[in-house]
Amino acid sequence: MGGLFITFEGSEGAGKSTQLARLVEALQGVGIAAVVTREPGGTPFGTRVREVLLDPELDMHALPEFLLYSASRAQLVQDVIRPALERGEVVICDRYFDSSLAYQGAGRGLPLPLLQSVTREVTGGLKPDLTILLDLDPVTGLERAARRGQPDRLERADLSFHQRVRQGFLDLARQEPQRFTVLDATHPPERTAQAVWKAVQAHLNPLH
Amino acid sequence: MGGLFITFEGSEGAGKSTQLARLVEALQGVGIAAVVTREPGGTPFGTRVREVLLDPELDMHALPEFLLYSASRAQLVQDVIRPALERGEVVICDRYFDSSLAYQGAGRGLPLPLLQSVTREVTGGLKPDLTILLDLDPVTGLERAARRGQPDRLERADLSFHQRVRQGFLDLARQEPQRFTVLDATHPPERTAQAVWKAVQAHLNPLH
Repeated sequence: MGGLFITFEGSEGAGKSTQLARLVEALQGVGIAAVVTREPGGTPFGTRVREVLLDPELDMHALPEFLLYSASRAQLVQDVIRPALERGEVVICDRYFDSSLAYQGAGRGLPLPLLQSVTREVTGGLKPDLTILLDLDPVTGLERAARRGQPDRLERADLSFHQRVRQGFLDLARQEPQRFTVLDATHPPERTAQAVWKAVQAHLNPLH
Repeated sequence: MGGLFITFEGSEGAGKSTQLARLVEALQGVGIAAVVTREPGGTPFGTRVREVLLDPELDMHALPEFLLYSASRAQLVQDVIRPALERGEVVICDRYFDSSLAYQGAGRGLPLPLLQSVTREVTGGLKPDLTILLDLDPVTGLERAARRGQPDRLERADLSFHQRVRQGFLDLARQEPQRFTVLDATHPPERTAQAVWKAVQAHLNPLH
């Protein structure tokens, strides 16, 4: 499979959306139109699943929550990500399976072997070529997210949950240093954007 | 775990709802108040998932479909079925995991080992004590369903799909003859209701 598959990961308020938009601009600057998508969502089916997942009124246990994320992911991989990569395109996804391993695994305590075996089925083994992890202390992240308005269901979880999630992301990055680029999300956005672009360019060179 | 767990299974239009209501009445007649629930649904979370699954406008692949059913099931087992059985109650559920094995396995061709391993996690191994399978030729079933109004997404699938589903149910029943009671859904409802009641009474005796 050709193409280039880039994912952004990180806690709430780490600036994923900003950095993703900057990367899209930078790619446009060198004449590359990226396919931009997100999880949960990215398809009509995924958008409906996203509404259920982010509804602050709705209680759900960890396993059904994980299965909904996985359902959205399965549809997205099959309908959007895989076809775009097969056409040789650059795909940028706001969150992917690392978020499930960090949030439902490290955060909510679901067993990793279960998460990994379902994830293998759901993705058909498709891993990102590059994962940008925007690392942020959860106290800072939640303050940032709160300033944006009404917190969603995940943002309202307690601080220790978000600390486990952060550690989960860092553990994943340590296990796959080739795939992950970890950036300090407290740095000025301009500086982070340059670091993202440097990491992406290293993957673009063989293509151009 | 005490209690008694009864499920109704069968193709579209086989008369599950009618027979379920008759059984509830029969139980009331001997002073037993059953907990009646259904899949997908049965919880606020499951009801939202049900809306997505039955939306005729929404396309979804077999795996995300199965994961949504499983998510609804996980929440239902944990919040409704298990607590009621632990209180020693009778639980009647309109569809349970046999439907996933028949529809997404036999019908849509997802591999059974995958369905079974996710199902084990989702149910914690909880099987019904008694499963009433209302068996019906799909041609008759779809005619009946059509008479009830607008077909939903599953009812609109082609006939060969519904034939594989029927065969899937019959295969499951053959593998677990102790658990399954297979009834011919073309018989008059009164006769079927009596057969259901006879099967249920065999399980009630030790309780009363």
